[in-house]
Amino acid sequence: MTVAEFRRHAHQVADWIADYLDRVATLPIIPARKPGETYDMLPDHAPEQPEDFSGLMADLERVVVPGLVGWQHPGFFAYFPGNISPPAVLAEMVTASLGQQGMMWSTSPVATEVEMKVLDWLVDLLGLPQDWKMAGPGGGVIQMSASDATHTALAVARIRAQDGAALDDLVAYVSAQAHSSIEKGARVAGYRHIRLVTVDRAFALEPDSLARAIETDRAGGLKPTFVCSSIGTTGTTAVDPVRRVGEIARREQIWHHVDAAFAGSSMICPEFRHHQDGLELVDSYVFNPHKWLFTNFDCSVFYVADRRPLLKALSILPAYLRGSAADGTVVVDYRDWHVPLGRRFRALKLWWVLRSYGAEGLRQVIRNHVSLARSLAARVTAHPRLDLVAPVPFSLVCFRHADGNDATRSLAEAINRSGHSYVTPSSIDDVSFIRVSIGQTMTDKEHVDRLWELVAATA
Amino acid sequence: MTVAEFRRHAHQVADWIADYLDRVATLPIIPARKPGETYDMLPDHAPEQPEDFSGLMADLERVVVPGLVGWQHPGFFAYFPGNISPPAVLAEMVTASLGQQGMMWSTSPVATEVEMKVLDWLVDLLGLPQDWKMAGPGGGVIQMSASDATHTALAVARIRAQDGAALDDLVAYVSAQAHSSIEKGARVAGYRHIRLVTVDRAFALEPDSLARAIETDRAGGLKPTFVCSSIGTTGTTAVDPVRRVGEIARREQIWHHVDAAFAGSSMICPEFRHHQDGLELVDSYVFNPHKWLFTNFDCSVFYVADRRPLLKALSILPAYLRGSAADGTVVVDYRDWHVPLGRRFRALKLWWVLRSYGAEGLRQVIRNHVSLARSLAARVTAHPRLDLVAPVPFSLVCFRHADGNDATRSLAEAINRSGHSYVTPSSIDDVSFIRVSIGQTMTDKEHVDRLWELVAATA
Repeated sequence: MTVAEFRRHAHQVADWIADYLDRVATLPIIPARKPGETYDMLPDHAPEQPEDFSGLMADLERVVVPGLVGWQHPGFFAYFPGNISPPAVLAEMVTASLGQQGMMWSTSPVATEVEMKVLDWLVDLLGLPQDWKMAGPGGGVIQMSASDATHTALAVARIRAQDGAALDDLVAYVSAQAHSSIEKGARVAGYRHIRLVTVDRAFALEPDSLARAIETDRAGGLKPTFVCSSIGTTGTTAVDPVRRVGEIARREQIWHHVDAAFAGSSMICPEFRHHQDGLELVDSYVFNPHKWLFTNFDCSVFYVADRRPLLKALSILPAYLRGSAADGTVVVDYRDWHVPLGRRFRALKLWWVLRSYGAEGLRQVIRNHVSLARSLAARVTAHPRLDLVAPVPFSLVCFRHADGNDATRSLAEAINRSGHSYVTPSSIDDVSFIRVSIGQTMTDKEHVDRLWELVAATA
Repeated sequence: MTVAEFRRHAHQVADWIADYLDRVATLPIIPARKPGETYDMLPDHAPEQPEDFSGLMADLERVVVPGLVGWQHPGFFAYFPGNISPPAVLAEMVTASLGQQGMMWSTSPVATEVEMKVLDWLVDLLGLPQDWKMAGPGGGVIQMSASDATHTALAVARIRAQDGAALDDLVAYVSAQAHSSIEKGARVAGYRHIRLVTVDRAFALEPDSLARAIETDRAGGLKPTFVCSSIGTTGTTAVDPVRRVGEIARREQIWHHVDAAFAGSSMICPEFRHHQDGLELVDSYVFNPHKWLFTNFDCSVFYVADRRPLLKALSILPAYLRGSAADGTVVVDYRDWHVPLGRRFRALKLWWVLRSYGAEGLRQVIRNHVSLARSLAARVTAHPRLDLVAPVPFSLVCFRHADGNDATRSLAEAINRSGHSYVTPSSIDDVSFIRVSIGQTMTDKEHVDRLWELVAATA
């Protein structure tokens, strides 16, 4: 494909994308595809000869669109959002064409330093500790996902702890309501002992239980190494007591990681920051602009309060990778901040989103989502046959049918059969409930109203 | 930004990208940017109010382009290529706009099954074992980078081995010439013992040294767990004896991983497949279409011969992630194939590249690169003041100046000062040499000739 052909096709694709965004709200959220159906639509072998671009575009309509889940549909209330936004898509186009590999400062000065600056911006925008800026002892880096960032924190904590301790003795602690990625990350990072700490009635970690678990493990000859606090658990967006966990972690010299994957974006509004009280007692922190800050996946922001243990654990220096800045200036080589070596110029989309929306524009969208969630929660509370099952600190509403698990599951199925709304059925301790996560880029009052009408009519 | 505005801007960006591809060969490969310069060009705080899109576009020219390294310049002979191609860029545009999260089959049937099919295609295209197809006991998955894939293999091998063994006793083996990601991955994955096995004069792993190292470790009470063979090391594209390593690994019940990150793409041409003899004795394998198969980063393909230990190590099943195919059919949930949970629809670009080039088109580009490398190697050999330092099995040419390290380094600096060619200075055992990696999407005879004229004139 020549550049001239590329230009023509790129205009075609630009129109196709705009048309897709125009019609996404009218497409089914859950596709009718059966397992194996897409696989069988494709030939068994790659073509030997080049195919015309028109065939690829035709297959977007024939193969791709009918197999999509409506992550960008405004009635998508499932999981947490995985948002795109117009400026982020435009930035992804540019990033794809530049083909930068920002593994070292010298392999892409602009990818490296735009990332440094934009992550410094976010420290101020979200009210995070100033020490986390690049000029401080800490710093930020974009990783692929919160799972990766959390795994990185677990690995760095383990590497720091394993000098003078047996690997088999290290222990990680996390609330029983924390995201599955923490338990998985701990397993991958080599923790044999993973303690799921009990939670209170609001599903937040109980610091006293944590302290007791640590004490028991020390008495048993083990070495407490890592603890994770969640600001907004996945199940119900419960908020762990970061300050109290941090005090315990400091006293016990345990790495304290915070998972704010979803809720971290809300901190751009000062009224939510009381939920992150105690961040100065944290060693590492992750939140995902690709969830609720309208920046395409993958964009997971990982901060450390002190970059030394991170770099000590992850830096490498083989001959073919030597030579950062030619004059010997100390620069940031982001390869030393995570497991992968290669990295795309992902900061561009974050830069463009922050500038296109402006901080005030982002606050408006987030406040609107939270306000919609609170209205929905009020309607649920007022409804005689529905019960909230958890507080609503952000924009996730969790409720159940008063008649129990079967009625709750039937209600979830009815919603998901509607074609216009999609929710996640979930459960805690055998109590089924429905998660309504309000945060899709295009979700507004009309979409939540339509969901509520269906819920009220069905319940 | 409304969809109508997005449409207008997307056309602007499409033209900007095409213009960039038209001029990239005329831009400097190494930017003049100083450390801190880009950082200082950006304001200290994010804007409160939305900025106009024209400002973002203007900053592409003011801030971004002068800070780019010419990874897409046809005179880019440094590292290994990190290639884009026109069809891959178009696919990235579509992927960005669809915003799919393919963590489970049910969260994106099409992203899941296009990936399954296209990775099955590659098994045939590259002459890999049929067992690695999804219908077999194994299967393939796209990861972000070879570092991630190798780390995954290391973690799975460790989790398999740690039942009945102390974590502190596990040992990983890799040649002294293997990529730094293997040593880093082993450290991250929790191996306390990492043995760098000696290499022969062609820089390939010595199986006898491997066998002796294993014997010594077993005698010392340790547990050999993982060995990596490289097909095309980063330093010189040396090829380890995969079959002999595989025989040792089978006998010793050690996980055998193959890193073919760069050279794997060449296997689309049958004449290179003798280098991968023995793949039926391999547990896992990685190669990067984002290096030499003209598919944008990130696209690292990871195969396992048996998916059971992978899924056993990495699968999770919390309440909010239950429920794959509604009818209970067994489906592939790719979250269980790697560390991260979220994942983009990356298979689309691989699908589009394979169809746009056709297998025969890809073979032509790769054969051209290899032919250019062999011509360059012949010129180096014939030159009285230059010496090849390693065989040229693929398209990497490693040579040095007969006058020694200083002359070699001066020659590399002269090339990199030229503005039209960029090479990597490297060294093995204190012998400096120049790596000329021929594999950029647009590199052709004229670019290698220009490099050679400079080398010959300077040497």
